[in-house]
Amino acid sequence: MNKDFQANKAAYGRLFQAAEAVLPNAYAPFSHFQVGAALLTEEGKVFTGVNVENSSYGGTICAERTACVKALSEGYRNFEAIAIASSGGTAFPCGICRQFLYEFAPDLIVILGEDIGHLMKYTLKELLPEGFKL
Amino acid sequence: MNKDFQANKAAYGRLFQAAEAVLPNAYAPFSHFQVGAALLTEEGKVFTGVNVENSSYGGTICAERTACVKALSEGYRNFEAIAIASSGGTAFPCGICRQFLYEFAPDLIVILGEDIGHLMKYTLKELLPEGFKL
Amino acid sequence: MNKDFQANKAAYGRLFQAAEAVLPNAYAPFSHFQVGAALLTEEGKVFTGVNVENSSYGGTICAERTACVKALSEGYRNFEAIAIASSGGTAFPCGICRQFLYEFAPDLIVILGEDIGHLMKYTLKELLPEGFKL
Amino acid sequence: MNKDFQANKAAYGRLFQAAEAVLPNAYAPFSHFQVGAALLTEEGKVFTGVNVENSSYGGTICAERTACVKALSEGYRNFEAIAIASSGGTAFPCGICRQFLYEFAPDLIVILGEDIGHLMKYTLKELLPEGFKL
Repeated sequence: MNKDFQANKAAYGRLFQAAEAVLPNAYAPFSHFQVGAALLTEEGKVFTGVNVENSSYGGTICAERTACVKALSEGYRNFEAIAIASSGGTAFPCGICRQFLYEFAPDLIVILGEDIGHLMKYTLKELLPEGFKL
Repeated sequence: MNKDFQANKAAYGRLFQAAEAVLPNAYAPFSHFQVGAALLTEEGKVFTGVNVENSSYGGTICAERTACVKALSEGYRNFEAIAIASSGGTAFPCGICRQFLYEFAPDLIVILGEDIGHLMKYTLKELLPEGFKL
Repeated sequence: MNKDFQANKAAYGRLFQAAEAVLPNAYAPFSHFQVGAALLTEEGKVFTGVNVENSSYGGTICAERTACVKALSEGYRNFEAIAIASSGGTAFPCGICRQFLYEFAPDLIVILGEDIGHLMKYTLKELLPEGFKL
Repeated sequence: MNKDFQANKAAYGRLFQAAEAVLPNAYAPFSHFQVGAALLTEEGKVFTGVNVENSSYGGTICAERTACVKALSEGYRNFEAIAIASSGGTAFPCGICRQFLYEFAPDLIVILGEDIGHLMKYTLKELLPEGFKL
């Protein structure tokens, strides 16, 4: 945990709330597990994303990746933090999303928790040690 | 080919141009093949996307899926047409993207071609016959 | 439909039965939809596969791709036909699998149906027209 | 690092050699980065896999997942260790493969290194802390 966690607690709370706010947009007819993500760029812009499932489960794209491709497609490539909320409690990013985000921001701050009163903070590197990048 | 192709030629040209416009945002350090997509919702809104590659190739998300998750995360689920442009000539959507889009719009109109003067028009159903949907 | 369908009906039936035989090995705790595939190489060898789901739905690998990577990892790259069986009736291959198989065998014969008495035959090209290949 | 590393050094070396042995079967026309994996089941059986790339990069399946679906499709679900070799030096598993293997064996031992003289040993849990599983 970084030492500036307390200092930024309010900012991270707001990012988490942005992630919660988009939960209704999730397309999760198979798992009924809705996930929302809010990605903060270094410029201070926030991009939100939701999970989008597919009849061929392998086609599913998680909320974190949705937020990331959204930001990239708008020309933003430098990311500071991502918050993840779900309809079912604390949601750690899956390995696919860790891999995807690692490409752009190994030092990304990851904010998640059961609710805004119980947020935890990690770095992406902590969640994907010895990450794979060409 | 739908009979209204000629009638909408100008509209499809504009959608294709929207796809071309985002090509510089593509993240394609491995294939050097930049792809842009523009997805038109039934409400008349356009969402653009680019391909985002990953060091683990399997993590790559194509432009078409980027545009689609972007629209969904903003609350749009009814799609009318998608245009696809690339840095390397005519780009047909891959099977993964066909599967992904099919979930929401089997009748989606797909516009693509070498350049705006040579656009072709398909329906998604034509490109994914006997599509798989739960 | 190819004209030699009747001639090979027995052979395709056997391939379909090989696909059915591995259904119990499927790992489908989320969809409860078990799929089995049997891939016939040009050398006459049969490789079977099952679907393997994942808690992160996007990590799921279908039976068809399992059979294909299995064959490839054993040094076989030339494929003649694939049969697909499922626990829930006729299962057409998803777009991801069509894309995956197309890389190696656009002319692959695809055998599927509700049961051995009602098999249908397609070519992969018919199921993925204008397939994408670099 | 587990304390029994020295004791099993010979066994891990043999597993790594099994991974190296299948490198020629890799299908890596895009990255030219060949990867081989060897998965050891609790019953003592070894399943090997290679990476299989696809024109749609997102369709790519890594060596580790190939080995895993191969074992599963043959009815094996309990895994003890996996070794990973590549044509380009030490290859850590990508996040997708970590996620995929985690479903079955969070305590899996992961063996990798530049060559058989420089093997390292991890547990999957170390490489995917706070892993996501439904």
